Amino acid sequence: MKIDYNEILQQITLDLKNIKYKGDVANYIPELKSVDPNKFGISLQFLNKRGYNSGDFNIKFSIQSVSKVFALAMAFEKLGNKIWHRVGVEPSGTSFNSLLQLEYENGIPRNPFINAGALVVCDILIDLLSEPKKDFLKFVQKLAGNIHIQYNKNVARSESEVGYRNASLAYLLKDFGNIKNPVDKVLDFYFHICSIEMTCEELSKSFLVFANHGINPHNKEKILSESKTKRLNALMQSCGFYDESGEFTFTVGLPGKSGVGGGIAAIFPGEFAISVWSPRLNKKGNSILGMKALELFTTISGKSVF
Amino acid sequence: MKIDYNEILQQITLDLKNIKYKGDVANYIPELKSVDPNKFGISLQFLNKRGYNSGDFNIKFSIQSVSKVFALAMAFEKLGNKIWHRVGVEPSGTSFNSLLQLEYENGIPRNPFINAGALVVCDILIDLLSEPKKDFLKFVQKLAGNIHIQYNKNVARSESEVGYRNASLAYLLKDFGNIKNPVDKVLDFYFHICSIEMTCEELSKSFLVFANHGINPHNKEKILSESKTKRLNALMQSCGFYDESGEFTFTVGLPGKSGVGGGIAAIFPGEFAISVWSPRLNKKGNSILGMKALELFTTISGKSVF
Amino acid sequence: MKIDYNEILQQITLDLKNIKYKGDVANYIPELKSVDPNKFGISLQFLNKRGYNSGDFNIKFSIQSVSKVFALAMAFEKLGNKIWHRVGVEPSGTSFNSLLQLEYENGIPRNPFINAGALVVCDILIDLLSEPKKDFLKFVQKLAGNIHIQYNKNVARSESEVGYRNASLAYLLKDFGNIKNPVDKVLDFYFHICSIEMTCEELSKSFLVFANHGINPHNKEKILSESKTKRLNALMQSCGFYDESGEFTFTVGLPGKSGVGGGIAAIFPGEFAISVWSPRLNKKGNSILGMKALELFTTISGKSVF
Amino acid sequence: MKIDYNEILQQITLDLKNIKYKGDVANYIPELKSVDPNKFGISLQFLNKRGYNSGDFNIKFSIQSVSKVFALAMAFEKLGNKIWHRVGVEPSGTSFNSLLQLEYENGIPRNPFINAGALVVCDILIDLLSEPKKDFLKFVQKLAGNIHIQYNKNVARSESEVGYRNASLAYLLKDFGNIKNPVDKVLDFYFHICSIEMTCEELSKSFLVFANHGINPHNKEKILSESKTKRLNALMQSCGFYDESGEFTFTVGLPGKSGVGGGIAAIFPGEFAISVWSPRLNKKGNSILGMKALELFTTISGKSVF
Repeated sequence: MKIDYNEILQQITLDLKNIKYKGDVANYIPELKSVDPNKFGISLQFLNKRGYNSGDFNIKFSIQSVSKVFALAMAFEKLGNKIWHRVGVEPSGTSFNSLLQLEYENGIPRNPFINAGALVVCDILIDLLSEPKKDFLKFVQKLAGNIHIQYNKNVARSESEVGYRNASLAYLLKDFGNIKNPVDKVLDFYFHICSIEMTCEELSKSFLVFANHGINPHNKEKILSESKTKRLNALMQSCGFYDESGEFTFTVGLPGKSGVGGGIAAIFPGEFAISVWSPRLNKKGNSILGMKALELFTTISGKSVF
Repeated sequence: MKIDYNEILQQITLDLKNIKYKGDVANYIPELKSVDPNKFGISLQFLNKRGYNSGDFNIKFSIQSVSKVFALAMAFEKLGNKIWHRVGVEPSGTSFNSLLQLEYENGIPRNPFINAGALVVCDILIDLLSEPKKDFLKFVQKLAGNIHIQYNKNVARSESEVGYRNASLAYLLKDFGNIKNPVDKVLDFYFHICSIEMTCEELSKSFLVFANHGINPHNKEKILSESKTKRLNALMQSCGFYDESGEFTFTVGLPGKSGVGGGIAAIFPGEFAISVWSPRLNKKGNSILGMKALELFTTISGKSVF
Repeated sequence: MKIDYNEILQQITLDLKNIKYKGDVANYIPELKSVDPNKFGISLQFLNKRGYNSGDFNIKFSIQSVSKVFALAMAFEKLGNKIWHRVGVEPSGTSFNSLLQLEYENGIPRNPFINAGALVVCDILIDLLSEPKKDFLKFVQKLAGNIHIQYNKNVARSESEVGYRNASLAYLLKDFGNIKNPVDKVLDFYFHICSIEMTCEELSKSFLVFANHGINPHNKEKILSESKTKRLNALMQSCGFYDESGEFTFTVGLPGKSGVGGGIAAIFPGEFAISVWSPRLNKKGNSILGMKALELFTTISGKSVF
Repeated sequence: MKIDYNEILQQITLDLKNIKYKGDVANYIPELKSVDPNKFGISLQFLNKRGYNSGDFNIKFSIQSVSKVFALAMAFEKLGNKIWHRVGVEPSGTSFNSLLQLEYENGIPRNPFINAGALVVCDILIDLLSEPKKDFLKFVQKLAGNIHIQYNKNVARSESEVGYRNASLAYLLKDFGNIKNPVDKVLDFYFHICSIEMTCEELSKSFLVFANHGINPHNKEKILSESKTKRLNALMQSCGFYDESGEFTFTVGLPGKSGVGGGIAAIFPGEFAISVWSPRLNKKGNSILGMKALELFTTISGKSVF
């Protein structure tokens, strides 16, 4: 039976418009508050070049933590398994543990997708790159096959002005010796990474590399070894949704990563990448409709890894 | 290229014999202390009936927590999604959180594979089954396609005599109202469930149902709906290895479940089930060689879900 | 200036009758639910034999955890400083830590006044006494100078029937090897100790020994050495009010101990013992009016140790 | 019987010289590393002007956290009970909880003597004082009756360069809105406060005000009301020794405060202040010989509040 992906995406878009939902736009970053909370976009891109889109798939949004996957890919490929001396591969359990665990576990963040872990990855990249911000952006542009991908400087600045929690984490990591560079420099790089803007379509295209065993489908360049790609996907599965990683695995069943901008990207190894964007977040910081849309998608299409 | 599974299993068995490893047999259950720590068995069973075995694949061992998957399958199918009101779907993070989380989260265990969660599942089954111990055993015999599967009464009794930690958990759950039946009855059922004995070959055959979208391959009976099977597999992926669930996902990339008897069972949806047994455990309570063997298997064969 | 203690107690009783307060009677012990929540009694007894009473000072109530002071006094005198190998002298911090700390600190309760610590003290007494329940009661009768002090068997039984939380703690301690006797026996002794009934006047008279450097004022018998008495008083100051020990020290400034029956006993070294009873409890399990009454008493009389 | 305090202090000094002890000088503040670890001084000052000294009582040392008592006294008198909306009065329990509790309890530090609480007190003082550093120093000089008390700028700078843990705490408090001023300003003030240097004799004289119901004995000025003084003393008793507050209460039985410079100050209400200095610290950050000396002092003299 042939699956009509176009119809599935249209149906999901229609269905979700009728859901009465609450949830607020991320409000701790001033620049993000002004986003229209009712936007909804979805984009499905196959390795075979076919693509399907629906809703506001063509509007730029702040990908925020989704960007941590790109940062990890870059650092993992460059540093290899030594990276796991400085950051773990386990889910963090409940959110209230984050600082406790960092203290208890001597400054080794549980995984590279919680903020503490991403700060360590940023610190690693600063040591590995000659011009961190420029080099990282170039890397993402290559994955996207699109040189128009940019940081949003206003969002980066806005976040840096109120990023007290991240500063607290970074100083704690510094105290444990797991940040080598000056804290200000690490935070600035981190806030830039999180400020990248993409459309759903661009995000899906950027994630195809992870569905493609580490080969950039746009230029056939090997970005990440097959084994490392498998492991990075596994990490998304285990740790990609903060304290809801189990929930996402349970209901959706694809490796993916969410961001507080309301975006989610996920992949099916060997076949496709899919992205959703809807700014209203649940209490765990994940897009309510984004998770719902992907649950519908894998349920209807049967395209889950399990 | 055709994969020679027979050769892979032989090679793994050979390779692991040369590894200098430490690790002790689970010693908190008196009956399990006497197991030969140097046993190693592996069994790979395909849905298409082909099977491959190596080492001590034909010796019975105590499957312990692996049995929690059978208990959950039975309770999930009977109770449906209401089960998630009493137990969660998130990994537990570090072990030292277990009691804290139970207290903090009002007696709702994080997932059905940690002891607290399995105790709740047992409590549920006691309410749903007319003769819990007998009915459960029959269910497992059907999944195994083998009426010779039995409890080991000595192991059950041995564990019940020193099971203070589980008694502590059960009374805490009772205090929160999340155990309905008398604690003694729940513990007795729990210790029986964990005392089931199987060989690697039997265990793999019992797990085929989870690779087969919930249809028992031995008698074609629908045990679990396709959607519930997918979710149960997702839970194994997220939560199957205590505090090493992330590690197992990262290095092996298959949904699976371990037990302190040294057994591990895992599945690849639509294709196969694989079991390993080696009694030496790491500090997290997982079989050292078992994890290593499965890592080698998915690396060589490329058979990971990611 | 001479202090008119009679007038102070009358004034406090009058003042507190006018306070609009909420707070409920301890409801987790069925037998205690039926207590009249509006009772209020206070009794001040000096070492020089003078005594002052007001309100319902002559009605028996369940002293509950106040009894832990007697149990500790008995065990401390008999076992000496070896007791501190099995229980600490530090306040427990917030309540949600209780189980976490027990796990983290290998089964050594933070102090003898939290439930876990009192269970260990009970276990110690069972080993030291030939007839624990009978011997302990006799000890308390001697401290009270009153052979009519008794256990309330209904309260003990009532608590034992629903004491799941204490059973959970006891099994956890057993798992760590810090309970030597069978859990059932320890719990039975513990519930009996907590079921002792006294009037405010009797309670104050029983506590005079701690104001008297360890000499029982009723028969001049040395119950506890001067140094041990000082330390026991210090422990009441640090740890006598669960998670409100700091608050009680801050507002009242006397060593004391509270119970969920609504009673509080406190002492001023070298001078007096004072007891209050009012069954309505705050969220921390301490008597609302009892704490208020003692704050008024030390503020008006200036009789604080600080 | 008249107590010969001179002999007691000499005896303590002699006895402690013979103790084989380990313990290291605080090494996280570079400037403090160079202190001679074998120094030992003690000074006992009575309200009636009599004073007794022994050992290195006349050598300046960094009083560090002892200074938090002065800061609290100043803020408490100026702000009154409103201060308790921003900081609690409960001991913190074990150290590993500090960040957890701050998170769990919404940025309200448990008490004003842990670092987080002292940072909040500093923030309060910055709002209340026109020239915080100058005004605070003047306040301490008045309490000491000595205009030569000074900050050690090198210690303040040294601590600020490596004070990552305190920066982490301050940013976390800022995130919760419990620090109003810029974090850098609060940290700078905090590090200055901690850098004050005194001799044992000067420290005892500065603490006499707390033994004197809040009246500065040097100029008869009312610094703190009688009731506030009682409460500040109670706080020292409950919370003055980090995670060893119970231990200090238990073994010494006087309200006091320790610092990582190896100093301890304590008072007996209505009678005296006593200070000890010995730089070797135990794992909890308290002076090993300092605690031992005060235990000997209260045991021999009988001068404990209990």
